[in-house]
Amino acid sequence: MLESSEVEFVLEAHDGLSAKIVEEAGFKGIWASGLAMSAALGVRDNNEASWTQVLEKLEFMSDATSIPIMVDADTGYGNFNNVRRLVQKLEQRGIAAMCIEDKLFPKTNSFIGEQQPLADVAEFAGKIRAAKDTQSDPEFCVVARVEALIAGWGIDEAMRRAEAYREAGADAILMHSKQAAADQILEFMGEWGDRLPVVIVPTMYPFTPTSVFEDAGISLVIWANHMLRASIGAMQHTAAAIHAARSLASVENEIVSVKEIFRLQNAGELKEAETRYLP
Amino acid sequence: MLESSEVEFVLEAHDGLSAKIVEEAGFKGIWASGLAMSAALGVRDNNEASWTQVLEKLEFMSDATSIPIMVDADTGYGNFNNVRRLVQKLEQRGIAAMCIEDKLFPKTNSFIGEQQPLADVAEFAGKIRAAKDTQSDPEFCVVARVEALIAGWGIDEAMRRAEAYREAGADAILMHSKQAAADQILEFMGEWGDRLPVVIVPTMYPFTPTSVFEDAGISLVIWANHMLRASIGAMQHTAAAIHAARSLASVENEIVSVKEIFRLQNAGELKEAETRYLP
Amino acid sequence: MLESSEVEFVLEAHDGLSAKIVEEAGFKGIWASGLAMSAALGVRDNNEASWTQVLEKLEFMSDATSIPIMVDADTGYGNFNNVRRLVQKLEQRGIAAMCIEDKLFPKTNSFIGEQQPLADVAEFAGKIRAAKDTQSDPEFCVVARVEALIAGWGIDEAMRRAEAYREAGADAILMHSKQAAADQILEFMGEWGDRLPVVIVPTMYPFTPTSVFEDAGISLVIWANHMLRASIGAMQHTAAAIHAARSLASVENEIVSVKEIFRLQNAGELKEAETRYLP
Amino acid sequence: MLESSEVEFVLEAHDGLSAKIVEEAGFKGIWASGLAMSAALGVRDNNEASWTQVLEKLEFMSDATSIPIMVDADTGYGNFNNVRRLVQKLEQRGIAAMCIEDKLFPKTNSFIGEQQPLADVAEFAGKIRAAKDTQSDPEFCVVARVEALIAGWGIDEAMRRAEAYREAGADAILMHSKQAAADQILEFMGEWGDRLPVVIVPTMYPFTPTSVFEDAGISLVIWANHMLRASIGAMQHTAAAIHAARSLASVENEIVSVKEIFRLQNAGELKEAETRYLP
Repeated sequence: MLESSEVEFVLEAHDGLSAKIVEEAGFKGIWASGLAMSAALGVRDNNEASWTQVLEKLEFMSDATSIPIMVDADTGYGNFNNVRRLVQKLEQRGIAAMCIEDKLFPKTNSFIGEQQPLADVAEFAGKIRAAKDTQSDPEFCVVARVEALIAGWGIDEAMRRAEAYREAGADAILMHSKQAAADQILEFMGEWGDRLPVVIVPTMYPFTPTSVFEDAGISLVIWANHMLRASIGAMQHTAAAIHAARSLASVENEIVSVKEIFRLQNAGELKEAETRYLP
Repeated sequence: MLESSEVEFVLEAHDGLSAKIVEEAGFKGIWASGLAMSAALGVRDNNEASWTQVLEKLEFMSDATSIPIMVDADTGYGNFNNVRRLVQKLEQRGIAAMCIEDKLFPKTNSFIGEQQPLADVAEFAGKIRAAKDTQSDPEFCVVARVEALIAGWGIDEAMRRAEAYREAGADAILMHSKQAAADQILEFMGEWGDRLPVVIVPTMYPFTPTSVFEDAGISLVIWANHMLRASIGAMQHTAAAIHAARSLASVENEIVSVKEIFRLQNAGELKEAETRYLP
Repeated sequence: MLESSEVEFVLEAHDGLSAKIVEEAGFKGIWASGLAMSAALGVRDNNEASWTQVLEKLEFMSDATSIPIMVDADTGYGNFNNVRRLVQKLEQRGIAAMCIEDKLFPKTNSFIGEQQPLADVAEFAGKIRAAKDTQSDPEFCVVARVEALIAGWGIDEAMRRAEAYREAGADAILMHSKQAAADQILEFMGEWGDRLPVVIVPTMYPFTPTSVFEDAGISLVIWANHMLRASIGAMQHTAAAIHAARSLASVENEIVSVKEIFRLQNAGELKEAETRYLP
Repeated sequence: MLESSEVEFVLEAHDGLSAKIVEEAGFKGIWASGLAMSAALGVRDNNEASWTQVLEKLEFMSDATSIPIMVDADTGYGNFNNVRRLVQKLEQRGIAAMCIEDKLFPKTNSFIGEQQPLADVAEFAGKIRAAKDTQSDPEFCVVARVEALIAGWGIDEAMRRAEAYREAGADAILMHSKQAAADQILEFMGEWGDRLPVVIVPTMYPFTPTSVFEDAGISLVIWANHMLRASIGAMQHTAAAIHAARSLASVENEIVSVKEIFRLQNAGELKEAETRYLP
């Protein structure tokens, strides 16, 4: 997908169920969002869940789907050695790609606060090299996420970091911005050209037309947290309605059936298998 | 809640986030549904997830909330000895109550198939006694779920089992039915009287007015899977809309904001704590 | 190893460290013993640890070694469907073979008590077929452990079961006995011939010369719990000595050095990697 | 134990089994060593295992014993916020005390290399304050481990750090040294006096008589890795002997019996419980 000649899209998922829904909707790939996964667990996006708790979530997501999953692996959960171990475990669980960002562990969500400190460029480049040297499947992708723009360090610093990460072996650059328009990203694309595929996350500029991204040569667009946001609103609405009415009557026809849960769980396959394997 | 003079309600949750939403909606308790938790993980409601994977989900739910959680613990995941270990671990994680059902391990969801075999009454009563002998907090509740009606064994068998489980020390009886009306339940209540509190799960009879349950003397009503069903529909809708439009524009104003995620994660507390604990 | 023309040997391990020691000693394979793994965890050999807790142990053992690991998977932790899921997870973690036994879940160690009930033959054969249909690597082996002798059902029942499991697709038969001599096993071998490789566990007949096993045509001998038993005695002795002396002086030269721990952990590789990946 | 008028001792354990053996030997407390736990898992002492994997080990150790466990919690696995979460989870699992050290995450074992960088004093003091503010049981202890001596920064820096950690609320100071004699420690004790209890780890000075520690006013001595070292030697010897002899005969009478495993697992209690709870 990173090398596709067209712009491609991946949608966020945060558990096995949402991952399966993303696949059924026709998407070619899944974004395992750190924010969404932590929020679903009920903790903060500050490495409150351990990396193996995240890994277990990813394993369920991978088992429930057949399309590639790119994981938002924060800073890699430590130094280059933690990244090496992570890559082995991600490959083992069938994860196709990993995005790591040049911040410090434990991380803070990029949209919280200003001027978050960044990782040393050489140290972060070492992580990328370690990841690429560790992977056993040549198709596994390492995406380097540059936080220079979002942290307020400007376009020159973003360029310097992106180039260093390219030289270290990154398969793509994720350039992040929290401006309400895509100007920063477009400025970066103008300077960057086609050195490596570029990935973006338009959470803060959702109204920029996709054609703008296409024209700028963006390779991959991540819709980063919209499944979670859809589910929150729906659950808040349903919980409030049931509580107010002290009854299911008002929501029963608004929500999917119990059978739809069984279908998503593939209950039919088990029923069929029972005829084969039970006496 | 089981001993309240009024009918009480608990709503399903399947992870830390949905549990928090149930609490914020004003409910006094949470039903940690086996069906919903397994579906969220992306597996079937047949003990495909191990009991410790379920336990980890419960821990996140307990950590994210302050109201009592009753867990749908299937058959107790084995025999009386597994139940003893389970009770210790549930209490340790702050879970207030456990419901176990008189079926065989590995279980099948009660709404799938007909005439599922039931557990031996004496063996199941032994599980209840073991659970009650094991708990260290006298407030911990063990609810015995009777599957006789749903499995087609009739009212007499349901009465016989409920009475045996009461004698074994159960704190309440959950009488399950999959008829489209509450007739079976009401018949049972007529015979049972007030020997022990009774819990029901009106998933298949959602349009029965709650006043009917109140008049019959039901103690607790479980709205068993509605948060999950709300979230599935919303995610399917949002995924389809984004995929069709190749853009976020159409969904951005339909879903909650990123800030609402941060609020649910209690990001503000961390920001405040940083001023206290960071140099 | 099962198809080798000579008798082969595997030695028990119960964690990453003991597995590595087995490999370094020259063994060609490792027996991940259910008894030893549960004992090391501090729980009983009755499925008190969940199957995913066992799986995590296996993952560490597999990561720490490069020789094949055969796991003692008890009854498969449920029915055929749990076995299917288990096989997927074992293959994913790099486990080479699985042994399942024809007892009931939750299991009791075979050396405890008499006349333990056995699984229905057809039900157990279904588990074997499910396992073989599920494996993706053709090299993965499923060994069927027959408990008929140890449970006191005699040689005819043992033969009937072994044959049924062979027909179901088992790659080898593990014939278990708790007699203090190998007579039962030899009698079985006389009747069985070379229909399938046979595996034995001479824990209760440790003084039978290996040449007897070779002459009888045994394919694989499992030394099933000796690493754990060696470590228990040594730890009891060392703990007692330190406690009595209130000092390390008496034990310091009896035990391995701290450097030997570092060597077993491969600390040298990290030091070397740091020169490559750290600035 | 920290406030005892005599010098007290705790011995290392690395899993449920070794913890139980430490308790049976008569020790009043257990040291859950980071080095020993990681080595037993088969990984390095550099935070290769996640903090929740360590937590699971601790839970098994706590469940298997009834004496206090002090955990070697490295740097606290992140910043003050990770420490807060850790304290909650340790208390929940019944761990009595936590020792954190003033190094950087991911950590390196103190005996490897020279001049390891240390944590900022104010940042580390913030961790201690966060831990003390978080604990719900007033008995939970936070021990601050000072790495200044071992990292070569001298006695003044050690004093400065110990005092800062005392002011931040630490319940005791662990002063670590890797010299082959106790001189550094004794010098520190001379300057420190009795401001707070002091804990030592005489791994590198095992021949210093305990009376020296007593005279110096040391409160607690940690025998930090001797159970693991005892077990490694025994397992290496046993594996080699079995491999050479292709037989158990030579080791059978050197190692403990299978019955001793069952005794350590408390198999008898289950047998007795079966008579109570099974039909």
